[in-house]
Amino acid sequence: MKAVVLTGGVGGAKFVLGLERSGLADTVTAIVNTGDDFRHLGLHVSPDIDTLLYALSGKSNVAQGWGREGETWSFLSAVQELGGPDWFRLGDGDLALHVLRSERLARGETLSAIVADFAAAWGIPTRILPMSEDPVRTFVDTDEGELEFQRYFVGRQCAPKVSAIRFEGAQAARAAPGVVDAILSADAVFIAPSNPYLSVDPLLAVADIAAALEQTRAPIVAISPIVGGTAVKGPTAKIMAELDIAPDNDAIADHYAAFVDALLVDASDAAPAAIPARATHTLMKTLDDKIHVAREAMALAKSLIP
Amino acid sequence: MKAVVLTGGVGGAKFVLGLERSGLADTVTAIVNTGDDFRHLGLHVSPDIDTLLYALSGKSNVAQGWGREGETWSFLSAVQELGGPDWFRLGDGDLALHVLRSERLARGETLSAIVADFAAAWGIPTRILPMSEDPVRTFVDTDEGELEFQRYFVGRQCAPKVSAIRFEGAQAARAAPGVVDAILSADAVFIAPSNPYLSVDPLLAVADIAAALEQTRAPIVAISPIVGGTAVKGPTAKIMAELDIAPDNDAIADHYAAFVDALLVDASDAAPAAIPARATHTLMKTLDDKIHVAREAMALAKSLIP
Repeated sequence: MKAVVLTGGVGGAKFVLGLERSGLADTVTAIVNTGDDFRHLGLHVSPDIDTLLYALSGKSNVAQGWGREGETWSFLSAVQELGGPDWFRLGDGDLALHVLRSERLARGETLSAIVADFAAAWGIPTRILPMSEDPVRTFVDTDEGELEFQRYFVGRQCAPKVSAIRFEGAQAARAAPGVVDAILSADAVFIAPSNPYLSVDPLLAVADIAAALEQTRAPIVAISPIVGGTAVKGPTAKIMAELDIAPDNDAIADHYAAFVDALLVDASDAAPAAIPARATHTLMKTLDDKIHVAREAMALAKSLIP
Repeated sequence: MKAVVLTGGVGGAKFVLGLERSGLADTVTAIVNTGDDFRHLGLHVSPDIDTLLYALSGKSNVAQGWGREGETWSFLSAVQELGGPDWFRLGDGDLALHVLRSERLARGETLSAIVADFAAAWGIPTRILPMSEDPVRTFVDTDEGELEFQRYFVGRQCAPKVSAIRFEGAQAARAAPGVVDAILSADAVFIAPSNPYLSVDPLLAVADIAAALEQTRAPIVAISPIVGGTAVKGPTAKIMAELDIAPDNDAIADHYAAFVDALLVDASDAAPAAIPARATHTLMKTLDDKIHVAREAMALAKSLIP
């Protein structure tokens, strides 16, 4: 089964790992949000792509929820000594991705080529594609004014109240090479249980990607980020409340209505009224959980193929 | 006493520290070679300036002879995992200087301003000036062809046989702001016991600096890098042999003949015939050694003031 996953960071990476370990290692393409990308200290940081790289190579710091296991912090500590900005915590090992990526981008290489090399170096079989080579930048309008995504997410720890979200550059951005083909030739397309508003919407805001989702003959299955009436991690439920959206599967189905054929939901939550759904245990703590959710999502997708 | 030191890295940094701890903390200006500066992984690395910053802030790894004490290597190890270049060993803490400097240079700030901020952040009283804001790059002509300085020095560990050395950009380079004034208004100018061919010559190749040395009324004292008929550290003696120059104080005096009024030499070596000299113990292992050499150099300079 050729599977495509549209994904953000942590939650999506778990699902992609589940697919990879469910026998799809050589046939999964992860199309990754780059709306969180930003320049910090002159370096190009791609948080969602790197989260996938760490998760799929077994290097994630699982307890911390981001970054590398066994990370050291000499760089950040020296930056602090020198009075430099320390609000975004760059680990020493993590810096290698940012420095090598920045240097190669400056030489005119593509993010796609760079990410492919990183994945190959770490023995990752899944194909990881940035959604676009063009800059798309997520801005969050809040009660503290408009904030660049990382200033909201890391700098302010999602504390400000969100009233709107926009993706600067998305209208002009083209899908990265391979993205549209992957969607059109897929047997199944999955929308990972990432934050719909912050992590998946930037992908959907790229016109090529939206058009390919409308055009593809593959079933499109979203894995709901809602578990037990709230979100597993991150600000999804908080943002839904701030945007006056009920944190339930009807809202998720409604959000993805233009594209999604079915929703995989947690057994503790009500299924959506509008589209087919399959209910199971969707919390992904262990590797077995991830494989289970991936298999359930694959089964749901297969059930939609005539 | 307002003192100016023209200096390269390790040996020069020891002498500057000696001057600083001899009561000249607020009146020493170190004018530092930037011919070794280069771009690595997209970062601007200034080896000699950083050696001074580490030495004067007590952060040097004395046993290793370069870099920071207590350094960690997670970055380099991750670069190796990713197949990136690892011949130049960038430590995790050390990276902070390179990343912050590169970002500020890219924003149009001057190296002088950046170095002044670093020195202030680390409580260094000595004024550290790069010799120039303009790029000067040392190239070494060898039996393996022409090598960029760091490729020769670090990449090939000074193994190739040197036939010539050139300083690309030196003819067009202007002295950095403050450099000429410091030399003209000094009470004494010292040439540190750095490698004359690789570390001091780039400074002398900047026309403004050479002119200021000719013009200044201050006595100019060089501290000989020769101790016991060889060089203390680094490739000085090896290069002298390859260039058919005897490793003695006559050769050092001859090399600096256009500028230098007197030479501080080690008691184990013959004094030069051509210029006044003072002999003492010049090996700088302990802080007391460094203070001793600084005081002897100051005494020699004072003896030349009419």
